[in-house]
Amino acid sequence: MRFSQLLLPTLKEDPAEAEVISHKLLLRAGMIRKLTSGVYSYLPLGLAAIRKVEQIVREEMNRAGAQELLLPMVQPADLWRESQRWELYGPELLRFKDRHQRESCLGPTHEEVITDLVRMNVHSYRDLPLNLYQVQTKFRDEIRPRFGLMRGREFIMKDGYSFDADEAGADATYQKMYDAYQRIFQRCGLAFRAVEADTGSIGGSFSHEFMVLAATGEDVVVICQHCDYAANLEKATARQAADSERDKPLALSEVATPGRKTVAEVCDFLQISPDRLLKTMIYMADGKPLAVLLRGDHEVQPVKLQNLLATREEPRLATDEEIARATGAPAGFLGPVGLKLPLVMDSEPAQLVNLVCGANKADLHLLNVNPGRDFTPTYSGDIRMVTEDDLCPRCGGKLALTRGIEVGHIFKLGTKYSESLKATFLDGEGQSRPFIMGCYGIGVSRTVAAAIEQNHDRDGIIFPIPIAPCQVILLNLTPKDEAVSAEAERLYRELQANGIEVLLDDRDERPGAKFKDADLIGIPIRLMVGKRFLKEGLLEIRTRADGQTSEATPAAALAVIREQIANALAA
Amino acid sequence: MRFSQLLLPTLKEDPAEAEVISHKLLLRAGMIRKLTSGVYSYLPLGLAAIRKVEQIVREEMNRAGAQELLLPMVQPADLWRESQRWELYGPELLRFKDRHQRESCLGPTHEEVITDLVRMNVHSYRDLPLNLYQVQTKFRDEIRPRFGLMRGREFIMKDGYSFDADEAGADATYQKMYDAYQRIFQRCGLAFRAVEADTGSIGGSFSHEFMVLAATGEDVVVICQHCDYAANLEKATARQAADSERDKPLALSEVATPGRKTVAEVCDFLQISPDRLLKTMIYMADGKPLAVLLRGDHEVQPVKLQNLLATREEPRLATDEEIARATGAPAGFLGPVGLKLPLVMDSEPAQLVNLVCGANKADLHLLNVNPGRDFTPTYSGDIRMVTEDDLCPRCGGKLALTRGIEVGHIFKLGTKYSESLKATFLDGEGQSRPFIMGCYGIGVSRTVAAAIEQNHDRDGIIFPIPIAPCQVILLNLTPKDEAVSAEAERLYRELQANGIEVLLDDRDERPGAKFKDADLIGIPIRLMVGKRFLKEGLLEIRTRADGQTSEATPAAALAVIREQIANALAA
Repeated sequence: MRFSQLLLPTLKEDPAEAEVISHKLLLRAGMIRKLTSGVYSYLPLGLAAIRKVEQIVREEMNRAGAQELLLPMVQPADLWRESQRWELYGPELLRFKDRHQRESCLGPTHEEVITDLVRMNVHSYRDLPLNLYQVQTKFRDEIRPRFGLMRGREFIMKDGYSFDADEAGADATYQKMYDAYQRIFQRCGLAFRAVEADTGSIGGSFSHEFMVLAATGEDVVVICQHCDYAANLEKATARQAADSERDKPLALSEVATPGRKTVAEVCDFLQISPDRLLKTMIYMADGKPLAVLLRGDHEVQPVKLQNLLATREEPRLATDEEIARATGAPAGFLGPVGLKLPLVMDSEPAQLVNLVCGANKADLHLLNVNPGRDFTPTYSGDIRMVTEDDLCPRCGGKLALTRGIEVGHIFKLGTKYSESLKATFLDGEGQSRPFIMGCYGIGVSRTVAAAIEQNHDRDGIIFPIPIAPCQVILLNLTPKDEAVSAEAERLYRELQANGIEVLLDDRDERPGAKFKDADLIGIPIRLMVGKRFLKEGLLEIRTRADGQTSEATPAAALAVIREQIANALAA
Repeated sequence: MRFSQLLLPTLKEDPAEAEVISHKLLLRAGMIRKLTSGVYSYLPLGLAAIRKVEQIVREEMNRAGAQELLLPMVQPADLWRESQRWELYGPELLRFKDRHQRESCLGPTHEEVITDLVRMNVHSYRDLPLNLYQVQTKFRDEIRPRFGLMRGREFIMKDGYSFDADEAGADATYQKMYDAYQRIFQRCGLAFRAVEADTGSIGGSFSHEFMVLAATGEDVVVICQHCDYAANLEKATARQAADSERDKPLALSEVATPGRKTVAEVCDFLQISPDRLLKTMIYMADGKPLAVLLRGDHEVQPVKLQNLLATREEPRLATDEEIARATGAPAGFLGPVGLKLPLVMDSEPAQLVNLVCGANKADLHLLNVNPGRDFTPTYSGDIRMVTEDDLCPRCGGKLALTRGIEVGHIFKLGTKYSESLKATFLDGEGQSRPFIMGCYGIGVSRTVAAAIEQNHDRDGIIFPIPIAPCQVILLNLTPKDEAVSAEAERLYRELQANGIEVLLDDRDERPGAKFKDADLIGIPIRLMVGKRFLKEGLLEIRTRADGQTSEATPAAALAVIREQIANALAA
């Protein structure tokens, strides 16, 4: 590629529309342009990076025994009705009628279509397992698309679906996909972590998210600093603290706490530590109030709460009015004893004795409250947010919270779709059984954005070699000098002849402008030919990631570049 | 690939839904499945063939200096309003509102989007020429989608757009694309012809269609049997016949033709040849009647008529009622003399003298009618359909009519879109000028269907090697025999190690079933290993296209296969 012929409209200033770094840099580096809200054109260099990710994904999916196919983007409503998602999927599902008034939608995901395809064409256990995937442009009509390729409406995704005859087969396929995903993100040259994930609205029995680690990530990831435990915040658990056996339940008593409402105020007044306080919070769950009980120093994890209660919508904190109506008690002095509401108790304080809580009367708290004796929880389970003070549930090691960007997600779906769509096969005994399914997604365009969130500096993008739009940028620093230009052309051809992807900056621009653009677009290796080549026969090589610069003859430079690329691709 | 693990649901019977051969065979060969009207899933082998075409297209586009990008499928209505196509494009443009009630459409083509992208990012003649393309799934809401991949609603297309500073540059780019298209279809291994084409509703100044020749083609192509002239029927012209100079205009007279209405009846009664008769037909053009005049032995070409009249819609034959209302004359006796309607005259009879036509009175015709003397045409031009009796407009050679399937189309657009969208650049003198554009399409999925229409027999598809889903199918004829199976596995690995794409039929099926499926899916080279290998150390090789069978040792077979593939790819 020659810079002079390329549609590569770099910008000097940060565009006003961009909030996050990958969005800014993709725009400034001339790799994407917005067409309309959440919808982007991929310009040549941006598309080249996307294609690199696609290719790695394809190779690893094929290696794992998956087969590529391509399903339609326009889908009929009837299939979505069969799975009940026509009703359940929100306005993110873009629906329309075609010219014959047939209800249709733009595919945001393809469980229905693939399940339909398999039920029509696969009938015997002998044809299983099947693992099918596609790389495709999807559309989800996000209410507030933002952050460029991080949360667009139109985006490129790899989505795969597996069909097994039994649970053991489905688990083995899941593991193959887990391993393939590990290889994919490793080959992309990214720092990432596979984390246990909540299965969310897509349903299914277990799942992992693949998170590219980046300080700017939207998701909080809990990782153990000692073992390989990792989970997202909706799923993470911690080793539970329990009172030692010598603590005996004492008699319940009231204590005056005039004007002390917050956890801090009460603990300070009573001289107790917050982990002795049983915090009582009123939540609205599908329109009904309930009381949530947890340790004073803990917070509710709403997704865990939703999963425990199996509510349709995520429960939310009640308003002051709702609290007053539901409890009749003054805010700040709520407690479970005598409260006429369903009680949802976190499993941690359930193990504790002699706690403090509000007495449901103004300016009064209760001492020596004991769950089981003084009140009975309606629900009990892990509903709290893990913190950095917690210990790993597996090894007891120290947990850390870090940030990540979800780029992949694998689910064991089970029979959710095969049952609702009546997709069955005949097993070895001639019995009809539903397929055991899994689904496996990778945000391809999002991976490029995540790579930039993880790899950039104030000068621009720092692409890992495996997913860089090209590997080398060759700067002709004095394009008006014939000898230098001849050498630049010779090098350009020689690099290409060696299978190296090279972008020749042959523009009639100052060296400073070329340096700036080279840094901005983030090509991993910069090779420079200028006056010094004429005098001393030397080229300059600069590595974008660490700024290391060295000089070498053309032959030596080629050897260095080949080695760097080979090392990066072998990773 | 192993047949046993592949989603390749071949069918024994022709599916009822399919009318044309490519549709039948793609379904029977397990390469596509219908999701909904005009919308297909591409199964692994079908997609593999499509990807082969895509790859050839990419390589040749890149070689010609074009750059790949990817534009959105969802497009905002505003851009289409700017080009006025929001109003002009019919219901094939699938329109919808997103969740924020913004009017949008699914891209059937991308002139608006690319012109917008270029006007926002390219400002100087120094950045020109630019030639940009994409390979993308398009949607056109056809009223009657049919013929499988031949005329679907959702389909894969390569669309490219060029931007030049001046006419000479645009013409040079057009020629490059013409040459690239020639190479593309040649490399695909298809018999095709580039034909001069009508520019149609997309506008622009000149264009060629690339037609894959096939007896089942929808389009009629006119080709010269002596020179390289070729044109589609809407565009084809012929060398004009003219009366010799000695013919003098004679006096106009009436002749009784009782009950003789048709060309045949009148000619037979008056003992004249049909080329002496001036046929008068009433057409409705945008709702208004007019009379069309042409030789008795010629037919109207409606697109030519539309172009001459520059009507919005294609003119149509008037109904009997409309004829009566417009002319007051009896059907079968119409003529231009004294007719109070606009007269549209074909250029061929305009050159003739002493013609015969109806007198606008029952049972009467006129003799010695002379255009110019007895009536004055309102419009005159080539409006007739070329026939096999015509001679080449270039060399006078014999013309032939053949059938083809349009798989590519290139247009010189000129400034149609750059003017309506105000897409301009500054030229060398600092003057603002509109880009001169071209656009270049290839129906990628359609090319696969066209290849099958051209290359099949009663047993199935006969893929040309360059676009076959894989090059070799290796049949293990006795999978229960360990020694045969071991050799099949060894051959499978050896072929792969030699870079040959091979599908191993490792199923537990009779040889007859394997032969049938191999023929049906059309893999070019069939290699068979069975009992004969154990006895004599020989394999059987069969070429799908000609059925030629030979025997060879494994080493010799490999050499033969390598050579066949190399020859096919070098074409």
